[in-house]
Amino acid sequence: MNLNKMKNVYIHPTAIVEDGAIIGEGTYIWHFAHIRSKAVIGKNAVIGKGSYVDSDVIIGDNVKIQNLVSVYSGVTIGNNVFVGPHVAFTNDLYPRIGYDWEITKTEIKDNVSIGANSTIVCGSILDKYSFVAAGTLVPANRHVWEHALIMGNPGRIKAWVCKCGRKLLGNEGEGEYKLTCEKCQENIIIDVKALGRL
Amino acid sequence: MNLNKMKNVYIHPTAIVEDGAIIGEGTYIWHFAHIRSKAVIGKNAVIGKGSYVDSDVIIGDNVKIQNLVSVYSGVTIGNNVFVGPHVAFTNDLYPRIGYDWEITKTEIKDNVSIGANSTIVCGSILDKYSFVAAGTLVPANRHVWEHALIMGNPGRIKAWVCKCGRKLLGNEGEGEYKLTCEKCQENIIIDVKALGRL
Amino acid sequence: MNLNKMKNVYIHPTAIVEDGAIIGEGTYIWHFAHIRSKAVIGKNAVIGKGSYVDSDVIIGDNVKIQNLVSVYSGVTIGNNVFVGPHVAFTNDLYPRIGYDWEITKTEIKDNVSIGANSTIVCGSILDKYSFVAAGTLVPANRHVWEHALIMGNPGRIKAWVCKCGRKLLGNEGEGEYKLTCEKCQENIIIDVKALGRL
Repeated sequence: MNLNKMKNVYIHPTAIVEDGAIIGEGTYIWHFAHIRSKAVIGKNAVIGKGSYVDSDVIIGDNVKIQNLVSVYSGVTIGNNVFVGPHVAFTNDLYPRIGYDWEITKTEIKDNVSIGANSTIVCGSILDKYSFVAAGTLVPANRHVWEHALIMGNPGRIKAWVCKCGRKLLGNEGEGEYKLTCEKCQENIIIDVKALGRL
Repeated sequence: MNLNKMKNVYIHPTAIVEDGAIIGEGTYIWHFAHIRSKAVIGKNAVIGKGSYVDSDVIIGDNVKIQNLVSVYSGVTIGNNVFVGPHVAFTNDLYPRIGYDWEITKTEIKDNVSIGANSTIVCGSILDKYSFVAAGTLVPANRHVWEHALIMGNPGRIKAWVCKCGRKLLGNEGEGEYKLTCEKCQENIIIDVKALGRL
Repeated sequence: MNLNKMKNVYIHPTAIVEDGAIIGEGTYIWHFAHIRSKAVIGKNAVIGKGSYVDSDVIIGDNVKIQNLVSVYSGVTIGNNVFVGPHVAFTNDLYPRIGYDWEITKTEIKDNVSIGANSTIVCGSILDKYSFVAAGTLVPANRHVWEHALIMGNPGRIKAWVCKCGRKLLGNEGEGEYKLTCEKCQENIIIDVKALGRL
């Protein structure tokens, strides 16, 4: 464990952090977690009990990863992301024993929330402030737009959500959506043309 | 570990039971499980490998929690409940980093069964003898009635089940359903008016 | 641990392998895994972090089981099978506390792939080269045919896949399907009459 690079990091005695992992100040690594070499985790993050962070994964600041989450090589997670318990990421679209394979990347942008027991198939981009409801299957190569709420199996976009996590209501016109949060009254504009076709 | 309160409790050497957890006689805590302070677990229960029981969770007698289950603060589990492997509970309807949050409660009544890899979103009541099929997503704030079988994503009530777990068949009339178990022949009456509208 | 029967087996120091488990040469048992007595695992297999292999489970050669998988008594897994992270198997169709139960078997044939976070309800047969997409719920007593791709909740057969994992395209006529891989060009014939009605 490269302690020189890890000041003020709390690692539970049962956790395993391989040499060459880089973990930012103020981050907690909980019971039975396993952080592989060459994983990079930001500041003030939490890695929950029994979770796994593979080599070359990059995780930002203030990220909270709950219990029993597996994050594989090829996944990048931004800042301020919530990953609920039991979430599974993947990095191989065609897993077959005895065949070559290549890593397909997945990108989780800043301020995303991923609900409990969701499955994030690789090739996907979860854009800023998007929200994956609990139990959702995000299919391969999906672009989940900013502020979108995706739910179900297969996951489909069902609503828009605020920075605070509550529903956005309002005018879903052409060109852009002018929406207002049902709770905090923040106004959010979704640029539909930039998103492309729903 | 408060051994004075825990006579005849079996705790595997790899499990972690915090001071202030209360565990009833005859209960087993298996490998790599973690029981937080102020959790209360009844008699003759089993907490499976790698499972997590958060502070303030209350679990009844004769409950069997299988491997890799996460039970969070705000969840109450009655007596004689089966929780299959990999089941995830939640306690926050709007998880966002940097925003306040409050615990939303979940209540699992006596004799409920929850199938493998289900997700129980908070705010729900699983009533007596209800049955969550494997892989089900129980949405937020759902009341799953007594003897109901819920399945799918999102979970919907698809049938009625007996105390023994088998299907109930029969007259689904108005006012009340007079049903009989396909296996043990027990007669069960479902008071539809009490349940409200299907 | 019966070392006499386990030459060249790598068992991580945090894993638990009970006496009477049999593990083939070249197999790796990773962190916090638990292998029960009377489990049988073949050669050159990998059992991922935190996974559980119950008594009487039989697992073939070259099988790769990812993190946090639970395989229960009654499950048999052939050779060259990929089991993604967080997959849950079951062995009891009617789990109820206080009632007798019997094991219902599940058979995973050679060269099957099971995607991340899927749930395999017991009584099912996953036939050779079949492919369970990530997040799928395979319902009880299902026969998933050779080369079939099953996905969703409940899982339904949506396509046919090659030995290499890619889609098979072509003539879906009566009697038999003459299909060709979109990637490796291999020709595969599906004997529809042998499968029975779709």
